[in-house]
Amino acid sequence: MSAHEGQERDHWDVVVVGGGQAGETAAQYASQFSGLSTVLVEEDLIGGECEYWACRPSKALLMPVEAQSVGRDLPGVREMIADRSLDVPAVLARRDDIAFHYADPQEVAWLKANNIDLVRGRGRLAGPKQVAVTASDGMVRTITAEHAVVLATGSSALLPPTDGLAAAFPWTSRDVTAVREVPRRLVVVGGGPVACEAVTWLHALGVEETTLVHRGPRLLTMMEPFASDFAARHLTLAGVDLRLGTSVTGVSREDAQDRGVGRIHGGPVTVTLDDGSQLEADELVVAVGRRGGTDDIGLETVDIPAPHGYVEVDDQCAVVGTDWLYATGDLTGRALLTHMAKYQARVAGEAITARALGKPFNGLTTAEYDAVAHVVFLDPPLCAVGMTESVARQRGIEVETAEYDIAGISGAAISREHYDGRAKLVVDPATDTVIGATFAGTATTELLHSATVAIVGRVPVSRLWHAVASFPTVSEIWLRLLETLQQQRRTAPTPPA
Amino acid sequence: MSAHEGQERDHWDVVVVGGGQAGETAAQYASQFSGLSTVLVEEDLIGGECEYWACRPSKALLMPVEAQSVGRDLPGVREMIADRSLDVPAVLARRDDIAFHYADPQEVAWLKANNIDLVRGRGRLAGPKQVAVTASDGMVRTITAEHAVVLATGSSALLPPTDGLAAAFPWTSRDVTAVREVPRRLVVVGGGPVACEAVTWLHALGVEETTLVHRGPRLLTMMEPFASDFAARHLTLAGVDLRLGTSVTGVSREDAQDRGVGRIHGGPVTVTLDDGSQLEADELVVAVGRRGGTDDIGLETVDIPAPHGYVEVDDQCAVVGTDWLYATGDLTGRALLTHMAKYQARVAGEAITARALGKPFNGLTTAEYDAVAHVVFLDPPLCAVGMTESVARQRGIEVETAEYDIAGISGAAISREHYDGRAKLVVDPATDTVIGATFAGTATTELLHSATVAIVGRVPVSRLWHAVASFPTVSEIWLRLLETLQQQRRTAPTPPA
Repeated sequence: MSAHEGQERDHWDVVVVGGGQAGETAAQYASQFSGLSTVLVEEDLIGGECEYWACRPSKALLMPVEAQSVGRDLPGVREMIADRSLDVPAVLARRDDIAFHYADPQEVAWLKANNIDLVRGRGRLAGPKQVAVTASDGMVRTITAEHAVVLATGSSALLPPTDGLAAAFPWTSRDVTAVREVPRRLVVVGGGPVACEAVTWLHALGVEETTLVHRGPRLLTMMEPFASDFAARHLTLAGVDLRLGTSVTGVSREDAQDRGVGRIHGGPVTVTLDDGSQLEADELVVAVGRRGGTDDIGLETVDIPAPHGYVEVDDQCAVVGTDWLYATGDLTGRALLTHMAKYQARVAGEAITARALGKPFNGLTTAEYDAVAHVVFLDPPLCAVGMTESVARQRGIEVETAEYDIAGISGAAISREHYDGRAKLVVDPATDTVIGATFAGTATTELLHSATVAIVGRVPVSRLWHAVASFPTVSEIWLRLLETLQQQRRTAPTPPA
Repeated sequence: MSAHEGQERDHWDVVVVGGGQAGETAAQYASQFSGLSTVLVEEDLIGGECEYWACRPSKALLMPVEAQSVGRDLPGVREMIADRSLDVPAVLARRDDIAFHYADPQEVAWLKANNIDLVRGRGRLAGPKQVAVTASDGMVRTITAEHAVVLATGSSALLPPTDGLAAAFPWTSRDVTAVREVPRRLVVVGGGPVACEAVTWLHALGVEETTLVHRGPRLLTMMEPFASDFAARHLTLAGVDLRLGTSVTGVSREDAQDRGVGRIHGGPVTVTLDDGSQLEADELVVAVGRRGGTDDIGLETVDIPAPHGYVEVDDQCAVVGTDWLYATGDLTGRALLTHMAKYQARVAGEAITARALGKPFNGLTTAEYDAVAHVVFLDPPLCAVGMTESVARQRGIEVETAEYDIAGISGAAISREHYDGRAKLVVDPATDTVIGATFAGTATTELLHSATVAIVGRVPVSRLWHAVASFPTVSEIWLRLLETLQQQRRTAPTPPA
């Protein structure tokens, strides 16, 4: 046993339970400038869902799909690829590379380089500052934290109690990102980012009949309605059969068995919908939500409630009611996004350090949620940050908004022949600052950060006029949005508040 | 004659000389909310260099080159295009579309929609608030401005007095963007954005032997040295022969004649270098700089000097010493970039309106140059905003800097197999704000605007920590840059000022 594996000791300054992005980052930030000894407890692969089963493989599967799509829309390239299709085995092999071939030596090396110890096993709180670790051989050891325990056990796919569903072994987010066998006919249940992303690339990789069933009236309900429409329009154009406002009432499947992640789990699946009609497919994907990873992590031993699998944290990511227990990432339920998990982890790590060294909290130890950015990696992509108009109005803010067709921007129109895209700003006139932004269209995913900086920096709209984007980039959409706002203000019957 | 063509009248509130992007925008902003009558005077195509001979066709030529390049580096797409090359006629046809087939009915319609009159002809100042317009038939009429004259006559390619150069009819920026015949062997003289962009796409479109001769020791001298190295490395990898620190001493060519824009102008060209060696090529491109368009525009009639073809303007873009004469765009010599020309034009238009209506100047009537953004559309692209480290130090700012390899960012590494890129921030510790940023690499051109907003918004670095970029986007480079800064501060022997 190496010291790095942390078998000789049972006491550290900081114990982190869960080795995904949140756990690794919390361990790094708690220890890097403080000298605090830190250990990570993880039973599965270090790196977590994001590395192997979510963001990384998802984007790896989308990139060639998007490149092909843009190429088909760009004269000169279009002719090169006209009669050809993606090399699917090559796409999947590249996905395997990006998912580190589902092994974690690179993460173990990173922990070592960052002086973070590792204990392999399942961690579970066993009282204040105590964590019981069950190894794969069933042996249990209890380790102790001098200063803090960080919970970072993530989330897992939610499987609704639909009749016959569990017995059909449907695919979840892990199967779609790790797809090995592309089914000929596919039914996807769900309308959020996971469902939409999976449909996008699976359909492009060769599914012949793709049906998306979503009980809500629109996709991506957390986004502006125009963004939902944009996603629906492009999925439909790609050939996906969208069934919105429709629920699944039952599932049946012959020869159902778990044949391994990303492999077809049995014979044809029959999906019954609430109107009594049936769909038949070769595989079924369920992506209807996540559940925080609070099951069996011993919260009851320290009297912490976890409604719906989530724990409540304060601005330092400390679990409410404690000064030693922290939670970061999905199980806080604040924003189930890798970058927000890492952000919370940085805050928690800084806060743990501050408490341990007796220093005051400051800007780095306080998490904010006014500018949560998220990208939905579709073809074309969508992204947003901050509040939508409807959320802002629900909070009582009498917002101004500006919308503009991105195809009217030279940088966009030049980038492909049939650019489709739209942008919207949500502005609080009381502070003259942007509080929300949504972009849909090719090349908008990197543009999003300008809105994030504007929101976080509370940059007045009057100053954004001097942030002049290069011609011809897509970022020039900012000029048109600001002009639209100004025009509305100048022609408004009464001046804005 | 339609009223729109403005032949019946000889008096307007505002007269704009030059109908490029700057002129059109100045006319729009002077008139749109003020009711001021406005006329545009232009002898050539309305829309200017940018529309037909610079930004738009340049990016149109680059896009398929870049798409091919990314595709060749992306498994799944790579196999589709492995044995094929760009369809050059299709690329050139698309370029023609983007350059509006070198005709301006769309611009004339835009003027009409914006209530801007048009007088076709060459405008020339003929005393205070007087402009003499020479039509194509040689007829001269004098028109008068009640409030303001705006000069927006742009710039043109500079041809150095090298022996034999002019007689060889070398290509300039108009020929490269309007290329119709791709020469087999090409020599390009120059090391700035125009030279580097032209080399990038001409080489990719089929030039077999491309040599770039630049008298300076590095390309793109206005950028950070790492960006210059990046451009040189990728041009070399593409197969371009770079001759840096080398001057052209003479040029000779047989059968030289102007055979039309973008066509090969005669027989083989022999270029003699300062070491006495010679290069032979089928065409020669000269892109060594621009000269402001102040020749023969009558500045002497109002006693305004124009050293090197540029006029000096104040913060409202009024020509220094006047309150009625404005200049916008290239001939101000401040930043020869379309978006800055349009920015100056917005400022001038607002200032003209303010003066005419007796209103005070405000933020919208004042031009700033702290955050000039520029993109060099190479493969991969480069971009920067604000000050480089060396410019900041020349101004006496004891800057902090942070650099990071963008290939270390998941969003970049996933986007192509061999991502190459680098980013640098320049921070003023006295204000804790970003004052410069440079990015090199695929997908950085839209990311640039986040830095522009940070600079213009004077967003403290401590607040930028809360601007969390989505995973996995390239924008996450911000996190690593901020971490690098923080690490330097925490490990510095003495704290930064």
